[in-house]
Amino acid sequence: LARLPIVDGIARYIEEDNAPFSMPGHKGGRGFLFTEEGKRLYYNLIRGDITEVEGMDNLHNAEGIIKEASELLSEFYGSKKSYFLVNGSTSGNLAMIFTSFSEGDKIIVERNCHRSIFNGIIMRKLRPIYVKNIISKKYNAPFSIDMEHFFQLLSEHEDVKGIIITYPNYYGVCVDLKIIIEEAKKRKICILIDSAHGAHFGIDEALPESAVNLGADIVVMSAHKTLPSLTQTAYLHAGNNVDIKKLNFYISAFTSTSPSYALLGSMDYARFFLETKGKETYRACLKIAKRYREKINQLEDFHIISNKDINDELNIKGINLDESRYIINVQKGYSGHLLLRYLREKGIQCEMSDELNVVLILSPFNIEADFEKLYQALKTCPMELLVDQFKEVVISELPKMILQPFEVMEKRHKAVKLSEAAGKVCANSIVPYPPGIPLVMPGELLDEESIALIEVLIKQQVTILGVDGDTVLVIE
Amino acid sequence: LARLPIVDGIARYIEEDNAPFSMPGHKGGRGFLFTEEGKRLYYNLIRGDITEVEGMDNLHNAEGIIKEASELLSEFYGSKKSYFLVNGSTSGNLAMIFTSFSEGDKIIVERNCHRSIFNGIIMRKLRPIYVKNIISKKYNAPFSIDMEHFFQLLSEHEDVKGIIITYPNYYGVCVDLKIIIEEAKKRKICILIDSAHGAHFGIDEALPESAVNLGADIVVMSAHKTLPSLTQTAYLHAGNNVDIKKLNFYISAFTSTSPSYALLGSMDYARFFLETKGKETYRACLKIAKRYREKINQLEDFHIISNKDINDELNIKGINLDESRYIINVQKGYSGHLLLRYLREKGIQCEMSDELNVVLILSPFNIEADFEKLYQALKTCPMELLVDQFKEVVISELPKMILQPFEVMEKRHKAVKLSEAAGKVCANSIVPYPPGIPLVMPGELLDEESIALIEVLIKQQVTILGVDGDTVLVIE
Repeated sequence: LARLPIVDGIARYIEEDNAPFSMPGHKGGRGFLFTEEGKRLYYNLIRGDITEVEGMDNLHNAEGIIKEASELLSEFYGSKKSYFLVNGSTSGNLAMIFTSFSEGDKIIVERNCHRSIFNGIIMRKLRPIYVKNIISKKYNAPFSIDMEHFFQLLSEHEDVKGIIITYPNYYGVCVDLKIIIEEAKKRKICILIDSAHGAHFGIDEALPESAVNLGADIVVMSAHKTLPSLTQTAYLHAGNNVDIKKLNFYISAFTSTSPSYALLGSMDYARFFLETKGKETYRACLKIAKRYREKINQLEDFHIISNKDINDELNIKGINLDESRYIINVQKGYSGHLLLRYLREKGIQCEMSDELNVVLILSPFNIEADFEKLYQALKTCPMELLVDQFKEVVISELPKMILQPFEVMEKRHKAVKLSEAAGKVCANSIVPYPPGIPLVMPGELLDEESIALIEVLIKQQVTILGVDGDTVLVIE
Repeated sequence: LARLPIVDGIARYIEEDNAPFSMPGHKGGRGFLFTEEGKRLYYNLIRGDITEVEGMDNLHNAEGIIKEASELLSEFYGSKKSYFLVNGSTSGNLAMIFTSFSEGDKIIVERNCHRSIFNGIIMRKLRPIYVKNIISKKYNAPFSIDMEHFFQLLSEHEDVKGIIITYPNYYGVCVDLKIIIEEAKKRKICILIDSAHGAHFGIDEALPESAVNLGADIVVMSAHKTLPSLTQTAYLHAGNNVDIKKLNFYISAFTSTSPSYALLGSMDYARFFLETKGKETYRACLKIAKRYREKINQLEDFHIISNKDINDELNIKGINLDESRYIINVQKGYSGHLLLRYLREKGIQCEMSDELNVVLILSPFNIEADFEKLYQALKTCPMELLVDQFKEVVISELPKMILQPFEVMEKRHKAVKLSEAAGKVCANSIVPYPPGIPLVMPGELLDEESIALIEVLIKQQVTILGVDGDTVLVIE
């Protein structure tokens, strides 16, 4: 009998009927069914899966409806020019890196960048200088970049050509981007923002400001993560200093020449939704989020982290949390990973977990019943299910870089057991997923500390890209 | 009032209810509604638009349902390893080029390659040697590569590292790939195939053989072009000599880390459909195609080109036409472009046109009513509508290459009027779309002949990438 593993897997998942606190932002189609215009897209999706016939448009040389829609997008976000990306923020991150930098350029990049940024650094043959992240001791999660380290790097490396910042990070935490952009402008270097999780920013004053408004040169946003748009859709916004011809070339190179109109239509709709209903619906979303945050925070064992919590602990100026995101923290001795699994069994789909936290992405399409389901599941949670030994693994220093990431691509590699890898140069990115942030980068030394952390994550059954069983790739 | 240009455009197109003789292969959803399994996908498409939660899988490190489905895919096509691509053949072409070649490598590539192949050549910094195409004098279309030229290039350039061939081309015409692959194996160089239009090959003996079966090293196929899969989906098949680790890296780099499960599910379904119903339905499709080809060929003004026609004229050994494609030829003095437009007005969507031909992509989901509609429209066509002066524009030689394509990316460019561009070095790819094949490549001389052809195409209102109004970009 012929099998259909993916189609069956999708059907099984739908059967579970989970309360949607993960991507995509349309929450199982609710975002489209919310308006008459959205219904039109929803019910036309497959019949509307057409190719670039007359009356439609050519994404790679837009002159008709795609051009018109991208002008509306640009107007709405306040960019000089905006683009629809059918290959996700991944393609936008590659395009902004290839457009802004040349081979051999030195750049400052947050250690906590997305894998697609690192892939861009490798393929564009850049020389990255990493800014350390600040890990919250109390909550054991990366909540900011180390601003002191950032300014130190800036003054040590006068020849950097640009800065790449993630805004916000996967937890919804924003660094003080205003001050970083000011610094970049002062030095006349370019500032690129991976704002994959920030497409809804600025729609209400209670949310962090949009990176486009703050004056970044190029901003990439996933449309699907928070907005009512289909998975794998993203926007790219360019400012005044960008070489548009170069940008056109690279966006075109990194995205399909047979773009899906279902994806394009949903990106058009997401902008329309924000424009017409964004402010009122996000206000309502933040209100119910606040109400349930307060209720949940009355429970003994769970704490949803607030802006105040982060500011109290870290004392970094200008740090700001997107409160349309829940970070549910458990105390040491319990496990965030096990909480995520427990909630799924209770029919609640969260976005991701780390050792002590579970992250939920809220959207205007989360209804009171979702929040109530979450509250009840937490309230009745048998805490013994979540018991896990807390392992304090703090990486105080970044691993030492022996080779540039791109140089590793040219060398011969071999697989060795983790237990024998200490002292070798890593040939892969080692990335726990989620949150998809590299622990060790190609070209960096595999030291005792990193290896210990990887072993802990393997025991916790976290998916780790770049580790195969108990072996890693190293330079021969 | 807020506008929704793309969503509205899709709805308007659906209203027209055209007989679907263009991509995608599912023909407005019919391919999914054809089976119970397909219906399950069809009706779950938006609710099934989920992210990589537990129970699903990670496309970039598949261990569950995606791994299982890609093993079934590999088994079905007979590859060593197969991949699902959510960013179309575009991403597959980039990945195969980056995996197989290093900077500075010299390769032989068909002039008639897809733009994504050329983008790969630029970004990987390769030195392309172009094989000329054979243009049919009778039908005025590129029907093959010049095999004599190919063998001449092979013997002149002993240092080539590989060959890239399109199989079939946009017209459905296949070169003698067997002999090309033998030649590559003899010289121990790699052979990469852009088989975007050949995903259905080999399912019935009456169709050309699959490039995977013929032993190519890497084969990229669009799933959406001919199979019941959503637009922007593709397969990549790797053979025994491929560095799988490198391939994994580049496929991962060029495709979204938030892949759409709707796209993935439809690729899974397309393989399932071929496996369970492919042979019988393609046999029926070829049968009805033959019946209507004969009927249409009785009409005075239209001729559907057959295998025999091509062999009679070109007399190139091993050339083969995919007969699940119609090439409707009009006589000189009439216009293929105008015929395509006329048919659309009659509710028939064709795939593409050139000066003398219209190309239609047939699939098992084209019903008798589609063919009858086409036949009636052709039979009653007022030929005066199609009158157009035939312009004989034959480019006998390829433009001279002054700079390598990648070198152009580093130089300063300026826009000049076409009429003043003769003698300058082109800084863009100049590509009429469809069929998406470059006339002039970056780094090539803009000679009088090329400029004349571009001016004709502009008059014919063909979309030409790389030309802005009447100006082109040249090296300063």
